[in-house]
Amino acid sequence: MKAFQESVLALSGGVGGAKLALGLADAVAPGQLHVLANTGDDFRHLGLHISPDIDTLLYTLSGKSNQVLGWGLAGETWGVMEALEKLQGETWFRLGDNDLATHLWRTAQLAEGVSLPQVTNALAQQLGISSRIHPMCEELVSTTVHSEGRDLPFQHYFVREQCEPKVTGFSFEGIADASPNADVMALLADDGFSTIVICPSNPFVSIDPILQIPRMWTTLRDSKAPLVLVSPIVSGMAIKGPAAKMMLELGVPVTALGVAQHYCELYPGLLDYFVIDESDATLSNDIAALGVKVAIAPTVMKTRDDKQRLARFILDLVG
Amino acid sequence: MKAFQESVLALSGGVGGAKLALGLADAVAPGQLHVLANTGDDFRHLGLHISPDIDTLLYTLSGKSNQVLGWGLAGETWGVMEALEKLQGETWFRLGDNDLATHLWRTAQLAEGVSLPQVTNALAQQLGISSRIHPMCEELVSTTVHSEGRDLPFQHYFVREQCEPKVTGFSFEGIADASPNADVMALLADDGFSTIVICPSNPFVSIDPILQIPRMWTTLRDSKAPLVLVSPIVSGMAIKGPAAKMMLELGVPVTALGVAQHYCELYPGLLDYFVIDESDATLSNDIAALGVKVAIAPTVMKTRDDKQRLARFILDLVG
Repeated sequence: MKAFQESVLALSGGVGGAKLALGLADAVAPGQLHVLANTGDDFRHLGLHISPDIDTLLYTLSGKSNQVLGWGLAGETWGVMEALEKLQGETWFRLGDNDLATHLWRTAQLAEGVSLPQVTNALAQQLGISSRIHPMCEELVSTTVHSEGRDLPFQHYFVREQCEPKVTGFSFEGIADASPNADVMALLADDGFSTIVICPSNPFVSIDPILQIPRMWTTLRDSKAPLVLVSPIVSGMAIKGPAAKMMLELGVPVTALGVAQHYCELYPGLLDYFVIDESDATLSNDIAALGVKVAIAPTVMKTRDDKQRLARFILDLVG
Repeated sequence: MKAFQESVLALSGGVGGAKLALGLADAVAPGQLHVLANTGDDFRHLGLHISPDIDTLLYTLSGKSNQVLGWGLAGETWGVMEALEKLQGETWFRLGDNDLATHLWRTAQLAEGVSLPQVTNALAQQLGISSRIHPMCEELVSTTVHSEGRDLPFQHYFVREQCEPKVTGFSFEGIADASPNADVMALLADDGFSTIVICPSNPFVSIDPILQIPRMWTTLRDSKAPLVLVSPIVSGMAIKGPAAKMMLELGVPVTALGVAQHYCELYPGLLDYFVIDESDATLSNDIAALGVKVAIAPTVMKTRDDKQRLARFILDLVG
């Protein structure tokens, strides 16, 4: 398989997005994939700075992710959590011993004044990752999930309450004062990417935080590189995570069309291509009516082959 | 062995002091031992609030201390440190997985606004300790070791540089603004202790920080309870830690007499009794000349029996 020689920018949240990022990393020449990662679910927990989506990308792209759990590191041990449990400490956010080392290291580096992009680069290098992972910004942006009558910090909603509360909306504290990742902005200004991909991540809590950083989505829209979105909704279901449940609760049609409408309304002119799954082919005309080119492919990624095939499909589509 | 029914206050640093604290805990009725612990070597490391002396007391008094290493917890595992080593993180301060749970829990509690005394109490209860462990103050007091031409944070001197730099003095940042532990002060005001013991801890970096908190040593001096100091120097050597090396470098005689002089100069009228080891009996007259009653006993504590015997000796001495 011939490697794609030009640079690709992929916007990604956690698990779902990281699958396609891995496919893209396999499909391009070493170092040509840049991932712009959501940090809107970063939080401080037990004194540590935790960046869940960055870590999922780090662990996935280095081949170290835990395939059994679907999150965290393979071969993980749980000594600290077991001891913390005995102390009746907070163990709802499961931190493996190896994973904890990442958080301790990151927290120490940040405390010494090293920036989050630099820390992320160093971690990627230590893990042998040739792709670049860029945090969407350096500032702390905190996603709040609005539910009926109460607001929840994202990880409380997502992990502690297992996405059970009914959502009514989201807000991203600190986003107005955040600056888009400087390296990515410089590359965009320099026409450094041949393709921009929005991975099949949650539109509301993974991609919206990235796009809503000041100047971000308009810069992506104005880039010469075509932008391809892969639908996170397939046959009315989310492959991973609460996207479908959120759409239902927000009164958005739980279909790839609903996803397309979300993006076209909030970010007019951003999408060039919309990749939907074969099973959703009947939605093509309605999506095309929004002014977006529709492409149809198998989008469910179970094997590494699936990931590579979808990545090649996207790169061929715009090539 | 009949338990001593009255309350005892013991001032202690880490390992050496904790040995006698354990002996005292065995000798008194449950709940009657109060330990006033040095927190001058507390520090933030990898984002965590670490209280080395409190933890040594917690682990020793709960019978969970690591007898092989001489610090930390028995049956410890090192998953996080191994992973942190791979990330080329700071591993000079060895944090076991179980020990880390303590630090994570403490850090989280402090972040929620729980005070250090409350956190320490809760940890003691979770570990099944009937004695009370009181941090000397709630504020962060940071010991700096002055060496020739440079200043070192205490743990850098003590752990990272293995006490190798030659010391010229010490300072305790934040101590002028610290308040002595309120529970201990209330008990002292109420004549709540029958005996006050200064454990055989390092005079310079374990006991001085406690005594130099505003109002602390004068309140102890003015208490009706007799105060007994156990010499940390035996036959010109420190049983544990750098006390002897420090005395040598500071030009203080490396003997129990040197220790007595240190206390009598800095805290006149504080000491009532000074317990020295049998091997130092020849120093009795010189120490007595400082206006302190001298008592002679075997002070080297290897077994649990040794610890209990020394504790009984002290309690009988003033009883």
